[in-house]
Amino acid sequence: MHASRQRRISLSSQSIPRSWLELYDERILQKSILGTAKARRTVPMDHVQVKKTAQPPKGKSLLDILFGRPLASEEESRQRVGPLAGVPIFGLDALSSAAYGPEAALTILIPMGLAGLDHIVPISLTIIVLLSIVYFSYRQTIVAYPGGGGSYTVASENLGANAGLLAGAALMVDYILNVAVGISAGVGAVVSALPSLQPHTLGLCLGILLFLTIMNLRGVREVGVVFMLPTYLFTACLVGVIVTGVYEAVIHGGHPVAAVPPPALKPAIEGVSLWLLLKAFASGCTAMTGVEAVSNGVQAFREPRTKSAQTTLSIIIGILIVLLAGIAYLVRVYHIAATAPGQPGYESVLSQLTAAVEGKGILYFVTIASILTVLALSANTSFADFPRLCRVIAEKGYLPYPFSLRGRRLTFSYGVYALAFCAGMLLIAFKGVTDKLIPLFAVGAFMAFTLSQAGMVMHWRRSRGHRFRSSMFVNGLGALATGITVCVIIVAKFTEGAWITVLVIPALIMLMLGVRRQYATILRETAYDKPADLRRITPPIVVVPTQRWSRVTEKALRFAYTLSEEVRVVHIAPETEKGDEVTDELLSVWSEYVEAPAKKAGLKPPECVVLRSPYRLVMTPILDYVLELEDQYPDRQVAVIVPELIERRWINYLLHNQRSTALKLILYVRGNRRIIVINVPWYLQA
Amino acid sequence: MHASRQRRISLSSQSIPRSWLELYDERILQKSILGTAKARRTVPMDHVQVKKTAQPPKGKSLLDILFGRPLASEEESRQRVGPLAGVPIFGLDALSSAAYGPEAALTILIPMGLAGLDHIVPISLTIIVLLSIVYFSYRQTIVAYPGGGGSYTVASENLGANAGLLAGAALMVDYILNVAVGISAGVGAVVSALPSLQPHTLGLCLGILLFLTIMNLRGVREVGVVFMLPTYLFTACLVGVIVTGVYEAVIHGGHPVAAVPPPALKPAIEGVSLWLLLKAFASGCTAMTGVEAVSNGVQAFREPRTKSAQTTLSIIIGILIVLLAGIAYLVRVYHIAATAPGQPGYESVLSQLTAAVEGKGILYFVTIASILTVLALSANTSFADFPRLCRVIAEKGYLPYPFSLRGRRLTFSYGVYALAFCAGMLLIAFKGVTDKLIPLFAVGAFMAFTLSQAGMVMHWRRSRGHRFRSSMFVNGLGALATGITVCVIIVAKFTEGAWITVLVIPALIMLMLGVRRQYATILRETAYDKPADLRRITPPIVVVPTQRWSRVTEKALRFAYTLSEEVRVVHIAPETEKGDEVTDELLSVWSEYVEAPAKKAGLKPPECVVLRSPYRLVMTPILDYVLELEDQYPDRQVAVIVPELIERRWINYLLHNQRSTALKLILYVRGNRRIIVINVPWYLQA
Repeated sequence: MHASRQRRISLSSQSIPRSWLELYDERILQKSILGTAKARRTVPMDHVQVKKTAQPPKGKSLLDILFGRPLASEEESRQRVGPLAGVPIFGLDALSSAAYGPEAALTILIPMGLAGLDHIVPISLTIIVLLSIVYFSYRQTIVAYPGGGGSYTVASENLGANAGLLAGAALMVDYILNVAVGISAGVGAVVSALPSLQPHTLGLCLGILLFLTIMNLRGVREVGVVFMLPTYLFTACLVGVIVTGVYEAVIHGGHPVAAVPPPALKPAIEGVSLWLLLKAFASGCTAMTGVEAVSNGVQAFREPRTKSAQTTLSIIIGILIVLLAGIAYLVRVYHIAATAPGQPGYESVLSQLTAAVEGKGILYFVTIASILTVLALSANTSFADFPRLCRVIAEKGYLPYPFSLRGRRLTFSYGVYALAFCAGMLLIAFKGVTDKLIPLFAVGAFMAFTLSQAGMVMHWRRSRGHRFRSSMFVNGLGALATGITVCVIIVAKFTEGAWITVLVIPALIMLMLGVRRQYATILRETAYDKPADLRRITPPIVVVPTQRWSRVTEKALRFAYTLSEEVRVVHIAPETEKGDEVTDELLSVWSEYVEAPAKKAGLKPPECVVLRSPYRLVMTPILDYVLELEDQYPDRQVAVIVPELIERRWINYLLHNQRSTALKLILYVRGNRRIIVINVPWYLQA
Repeated sequence: MHASRQRRISLSSQSIPRSWLELYDERILQKSILGTAKARRTVPMDHVQVKKTAQPPKGKSLLDILFGRPLASEEESRQRVGPLAGVPIFGLDALSSAAYGPEAALTILIPMGLAGLDHIVPISLTIIVLLSIVYFSYRQTIVAYPGGGGSYTVASENLGANAGLLAGAALMVDYILNVAVGISAGVGAVVSALPSLQPHTLGLCLGILLFLTIMNLRGVREVGVVFMLPTYLFTACLVGVIVTGVYEAVIHGGHPVAAVPPPALKPAIEGVSLWLLLKAFASGCTAMTGVEAVSNGVQAFREPRTKSAQTTLSIIIGILIVLLAGIAYLVRVYHIAATAPGQPGYESVLSQLTAAVEGKGILYFVTIASILTVLALSANTSFADFPRLCRVIAEKGYLPYPFSLRGRRLTFSYGVYALAFCAGMLLIAFKGVTDKLIPLFAVGAFMAFTLSQAGMVMHWRRSRGHRFRSSMFVNGLGALATGITVCVIIVAKFTEGAWITVLVIPALIMLMLGVRRQYATILRETAYDKPADLRRITPPIVVVPTQRWSRVTEKALRFAYTLSEEVRVVHIAPETEKGDEVTDELLSVWSEYVEAPAKKAGLKPPECVVLRSPYRLVMTPILDYVLELEDQYPDRQVAVIVPELIERRWINYLLHNQRSTALKLILYVRGNRRIIVINVPWYLQA
């Protein structure tokens, strides 16, 4: 039955034999999809040998230099970090938002002229309130999911698997876009400062991407240490600007004198409208992306984990609120408006502000340099979180399982590769200028916020723990506020590109569902909770294709007899001028070289099968013969011995054709469960 | 000893396991390199079954429509052609030379003005004499080598293998260049007539290349039939022009009146010099390329082969001489000079001549169209010969052996592919404009002529047959004349690009020597003229890597017991949080599911080997374990059973990693002759 069924699968379905060794790694899936059977009893066993293998390799290889020495699994705890390193690892995205969030809002307000500046303070306040709600909510999430909550886990555990996938897909899109946009914004700013670098935009972007990739493959600790300096320098500089500015404003009664006056305000060309304010708010909300990062990465923190993570989150949000509030107040009192990006005379809001407060001295340049560095490195938050997010999703079977494996340095390397690859493709596709992607990426972040908050509401409701009502209220308010914001962003930015996100996210969800379906099939079909059936072990029928008598044929024949006494040597006789000669040659030695020794050794001599092939085909006759054998002996396995030549130089590869591989593929695809292909290696000495 | 030696081969040497099935096709090599042992005796054998397989597939597939139905080997004789079809197949290159040879010589003569025209007749006469010598010489070659002589065979049999390779490499380069230059010249002429096609130059070139490739894959007969019309139309038109022109000239006493007067002659800006005349001669010699084609392809002709081939050659050379002589005479009497190519006002010599003789009526346009068609198709001669040349070289082991295999339509398909690929690359690299390559390609042709003539001299000297002295004289004269011409061409064209040919040919020879060396190694190392050693067949030690108890493991275990009772089940315990759990689970079922059934079936229970892997490596521990076993049991084979999953959709491939393939590769590269990898397929139903 199987035979006929399998045989109908044509080659055109492009079946591919897959490794099974990897079941090793599917244990997690097995658990999440099938539910692991409980370990019944661990009895002492006579035949179990336990060996410790794979000592750390000695000597420094190139890999060691680039990525650091391999880390043993037991070293994991030493890789954890505290709040001081946590801020650069998980906070660069959020902090750098201060550099572009207010600017994005102000850019929308340009047409309103001076009146626009009156609105930046209330808009910023709204964002800060929203940020605070989200902050409290994520603090609670950290406590509730110390295993590394994140929107995916919270949503899937409380709102169902599909809501979880929606949050996961939204965040994945957000993270990928964030890497591309972050790097390209940083490089864009550097390039506008040093126009001679203009032609190297894409190269610089990819260089930074490579740097971030290598750093993150080296492990989370190293990232924390290396990125600490720029992060805290950036914070110090901006806080310095704000404190000085506010001091100036206060002593001048709210009308400070700019050290370097900002460009004159453009006259208003449009009245104040709710639509414009909403759009400004939606743009300003990009300042909030990256806030969920800490909650995803709780497992990366040193004990007490929850405490460390909460402290890290508090520091990040605290700094961010100071920056957002300070910037909003100062642009207002210094009359600093955005200039149209991409136009001559463009100068970023932070550059104008720093110049106005501190003049264009050394401090100005240090500040600007630190802003550019942090912008370019802001992509790192995605690198910290994306692999962890993928890991959690992969453990549920929705992504290929290698995402759940820890690599050489205990990081989830596949996630790092995937992120670097996707972001690299985006950068290349947009030639390093990703302005057009900016509207897209707040959608994902806010969608994830909303689902995570809503999930927390359900969580509290179910747990009914201490003060669950007030917790529910905070998260409910957060869900409502971020939910409304998602709608505002989608509506306000729909035509500018948010529609792409709206299409990509469902596609990603479909993909993830498909992946899990496939894993479920595999596990279901291979699950076996019965003893091995070792009765009636019958030796297979062995097929040895050969063309001439050689050492290789001899070796294959000898191996064939270790399997079974039922050996068939198959020879293809192409019906060309020279074909007969070759066949005659093999047949002439047959009885002396093959039959006689077999009889002498007390073995049944092999059958010699000559297949005439008028169309000069080689594989088809062998295939047909093997399938025929299979039909003829319905209760036996058929083993096909295919010798393989081991060449030492890959270039020699070109001298041979790929029949061995092709034959194996075809036998597997067209055959059924009883065909087994055995590769017997032959080593060339020279 | 082997073990230690093989183990030192590191993975970095990029060894690749190669197919051995292909030995099937190496019979020819085996003969040419090792010398086949004579078939000793063909005794009736008890255990030989002979089957006829692979009937012609029924129904028309896409391949059938594109390339025609597959041909059985016995249909070969019906694919042969006579002189009528032979001329278009092997003569297009030679005939089309009439269109560019005289023009090339005249272009060099432009600076000499009217005086140049006085020299075209003697130059053409010299070329015609040379051509006649070469003609007689190749006529003799056809008789002497009815198996398809060609320069390669003649040179290698009479002057040694290296001389043969030189001739072969020179011809291969010539043929590849000829395809690129022929197509691009044809398309160039069409484009200059219809300038709106200019932007599609490369597309047109590749289109014609594809057409020629498909035609030649369809088989030699079809080419003959399809190309007959343009070939004979071209001949008729040009002969018509020449006859009319000569008639006009004669009745006007050598001063005919042009129907459309050619452009006025440019005044001479340079005196007559020997150097200029030599260069003109060297350029004009391009008219002789393609003459060797027939002698290479004798086997393609119908019986009596030699006669058919000779007749074909006579027709081709006859027409070519008429055309060359006629053109030389008429440009002289009509005062037609070349115009500078690529300059405004450029008009080809044949266009001027046709217009002068016949006016610009319908006849003119038909003639020009036929010239363009033949130019574009002139590449076909290379397609007819290159694969045959490669076949002969491959049979001696100097090229990968697939070049010696007849494909679906009995053509040597690999040669067709290789030629199409190389020419396509050239066309793409030069964007379809290959003017710069023209100087290169006469070198190869004349080098081959010279070697072939010289070879024939040796041939006659050795044979001492009927009238061998006169034959020797003809060929010796030919060798001398073409040898001098090669020198003239190399010197005259060295700086224009002939130096490239001079570099490429030796590189190609080195490559061919390397290929043969490799084949010789393989055949030497595998040759075995002894009976099989079937004493002391000991079952292997079987290693079954597994991670959990599943149907797949059960199947692998069952197969393991068909091989041997020495079974080791290897389990990797990664030392991560979850590692122990997985190991415990396997161990908990071990005694019940594995040990007990084995004992009950009277088999030795497998050993369970748990390998702890602190660095989360999977392959290294298995590899180390297998190598250790190999050392421990120096007289036994180690069979590693690697289950493979057969997926029906290739996309699912991405869900797994490639450990199975990688493990096999590493085991083969680092292991030794006693390790055998067995793939047990597992079919997914869904």
